[in-house]
Amino acid sequence: MKFCGHCSAPVSLVIPQGDNRHRYVCDKCDFIFYENPRIIAGTIPVFGSKVLLCKRAIEPRLGYWTLPAGFMENGETTQQAALRETYEEAYASPELGPLFSVCNLPKGNQVHVFYLAHMTVAEYGSGPESLEVKLYDEADIPWDDIAFGTVTQTLKRFFEDRKQGIEQLHHIDF
Amino acid sequence: MKFCGHCSAPVSLVIPQGDNRHRYVCDKCDFIFYENPRIIAGTIPVFGSKVLLCKRAIEPRLGYWTLPAGFMENGETTQQAALRETYEEAYASPELGPLFSVCNLPKGNQVHVFYLAHMTVAEYGSGPESLEVKLYDEADIPWDDIAFGTVTQTLKRFFEDRKQGIEQLHHIDF
Repeated sequence: MKFCGHCSAPVSLVIPQGDNRHRYVCDKCDFIFYENPRIIAGTIPVFGSKVLLCKRAIEPRLGYWTLPAGFMENGETTQQAALRETYEEAYASPELGPLFSVCNLPKGNQVHVFYLAHMTVAEYGSGPESLEVKLYDEADIPWDDIAFGTVTQTLKRFFEDRKQGIEQLHHIDF
Repeated sequence: MKFCGHCSAPVSLVIPQGDNRHRYVCDKCDFIFYENPRIIAGTIPVFGSKVLLCKRAIEPRLGYWTLPAGFMENGETTQQAALRETYEEAYASPELGPLFSVCNLPKGNQVHVFYLAHMTVAEYGSGPESLEVKLYDEADIPWDDIAFGTVTQTLKRFFEDRKQGIEQLHHIDF
């Protein structure tokens, strides 16, 4: 970031008065540009014993498998974002269940949240960001080809909890 | 937003190719500026039967009471943000408990998350953003002078759950 989005003057990285962190501040109009973590929202779509995964058609991690998830947009709730992404990437419309995992990625300035979701029918397909969408039993999950650590850890905990018959919220820090 | 932060050329509000939402895009360098919801993280600091509230020394809602909370920063986890804000606003260092509420404010492009927190000692004070910090029993909560709806609803659910002896995660949409 080099210029002010409001007046186009140069910005400087300084600690504003009363603050304790460096921010980009406009040299001319003094506007402070705050940068904050972004939310990625998604689901664990469950159909019977199986979980729905998407093979990514876009970078990053093109060709790797993921749970349907994406950036939460302004004007929506976390639940709406999770369901929207599930439809966009997997053409699936499951019933949303409880929040399953909150994954903090402080180095990447992201928080990934995954909701359990119940598929009442095996209706799904490949959205424009997916090469392939498929229901997987635990034994067949392509663990070496999962796109993101948050997805691997969320899936591992999901199968562990299911074996033990428990339902809980997981906080996973990376 | 009028100018590109990278090259200072004017930006236009358009739907980028392959997207379905309006974004600010630079007329010259084509950089896309995504705007996403921000996370406010805080705690419900509990000491015995009482809850710790802060009287705001800053706008918005100066003079009204709130749970300690604030914008999550880059480079931290939701739990770290909640504890940092609790110290900054109330000079309190409680032990963090489970996530209690996820409050979605789609009109304000915010998600407020509150963690239960256990105060082992009644040590607290007014940080620079607080006029006063005080432990309140339920009967004494200044309900008409609570700063934000997310705080009112989180507190109401906290006291309801405590009466019923249950522990659960609340999703509250505004």
